[in-house]
Amino acid sequence: MHITKNDIIEMDQRYRASFINSLGGFKSLILVGTADSNGASNLSVLNSLFHIGANPPLCGMIFRPDVAERHTLDNILDTGWYTINHVTEAIYQAAHQTSARYPKEVSEFDVVGLTQEWHAERKVPFVTESRVKWLMQFREKHDLTINGTHLVIGEIMEVHIPDEALQSDGFVDLEAAGTITCSGLDSYHKTEKLSRLSYAKVDTWPRDI
Amino acid sequence: MHITKNDIIEMDQRYRASFINSLGGFKSLILVGTADSNGASNLSVLNSLFHIGANPPLCGMIFRPDVAERHTLDNILDTGWYTINHVTEAIYQAAHQTSARYPKEVSEFDVVGLTQEWHAERKVPFVTESRVKWLMQFREKHDLTINGTHLVIGEIMEVHIPDEALQSDGFVDLEAAGTITCSGLDSYHKTEKLSRLSYAKVDTWPRDI
Repeated sequence: MHITKNDIIEMDQRYRASFINSLGGFKSLILVGTADSNGASNLSVLNSLFHIGANPPLCGMIFRPDVAERHTLDNILDTGWYTINHVTEAIYQAAHQTSARYPKEVSEFDVVGLTQEWHAERKVPFVTESRVKWLMQFREKHDLTINGTHLVIGEIMEVHIPDEALQSDGFVDLEAAGTITCSGLDSYHKTEKLSRLSYAKVDTWPRDI
Repeated sequence: MHITKNDIIEMDQRYRASFINSLGGFKSLILVGTADSNGASNLSVLNSLFHIGANPPLCGMIFRPDVAERHTLDNILDTGWYTINHVTEAIYQAAHQTSARYPKEVSEFDVVGLTQEWHAERKVPFVTESRVKWLMQFREKHDLTINGTHLVIGEIMEVHIPDEALQSDGFVDLEAAGTITCSGLDSYHKTEKLSRLSYAKVDTWPRDI
């Protein structure tokens, strides 16, 4: 099937959102924990996390221009701190439900039934039920004028992972930690490892490691 | 296990790269097809694709500051066009092998055994073996001075997907198309769908759709 730019422009808005969001492939599925300056918590599911660099350890996220996700972005900009929490099979419905448009005075932790675990010093909530999670410090915001979205870059400051997920070469075995993935706006998937491959060199074919 | 910022800074470089790259979760796994202005093709595996918006349909990719991936970035900046091709179980070793540091005069298509399929008008190569693929036009480059990486934003201009992968609401069923995912620098995974969930509303719990 062959779909042109014009076909995309003429799609119904929700059809297009589903199409373009799912086209991009499987994505990192996370819950972002924040608090406002009064200590009111917020929790928001996101699937636009991406790696920017390892030294310093940086990740980025894209925030849409609309109102729904602004509680999280506002809190990050206000306090400078946030948490990133992986989603497991046990909590993906709860994670999905955080995307409903709850008013600011409602904490998504309470309504979706997840447990907040406060970082003593930085006053932001982790998700107790998440097995892989880390503390982020805000570094930069870039406004992408091409469509009004915001790129937020943060630095990884503290990581919590299950002992059994960390392998001897630094690799975090996400399947051992129960982390799942997503596609599109609403599809959730567990994974099955095919293999890890050796570092690619010009004169040999990669082998399973 | 509790890992601090100092622990991360003190890690051996390769251990840290593996740790931070795998921490972020499962990622979109793609091959980027480009050509230089003389028509010499290049193919490069990437796992930093992310969704920026549906209207206009935009995706971003992060390029490292070092030399290895510059053939792809140079070609995108030279010609303004590139292709994005999903990876299936049948071709993930070949995809991985494109990350070896081949000299510019070598086409990765030839050495890893993938077939190029040229876009007649835009003179960039698709991967015949990929089942989900699209043509991108370069829009913007942002230099992220925080670590010297480059964010490249492009617009989706033409999409090819298998008929059976497109569902009636615009959702692209990546499992039906054989798309796989990756984690870290070298781990490849197929997926198994848990469910799609209904649009989240404040007064109901999501149901399987």
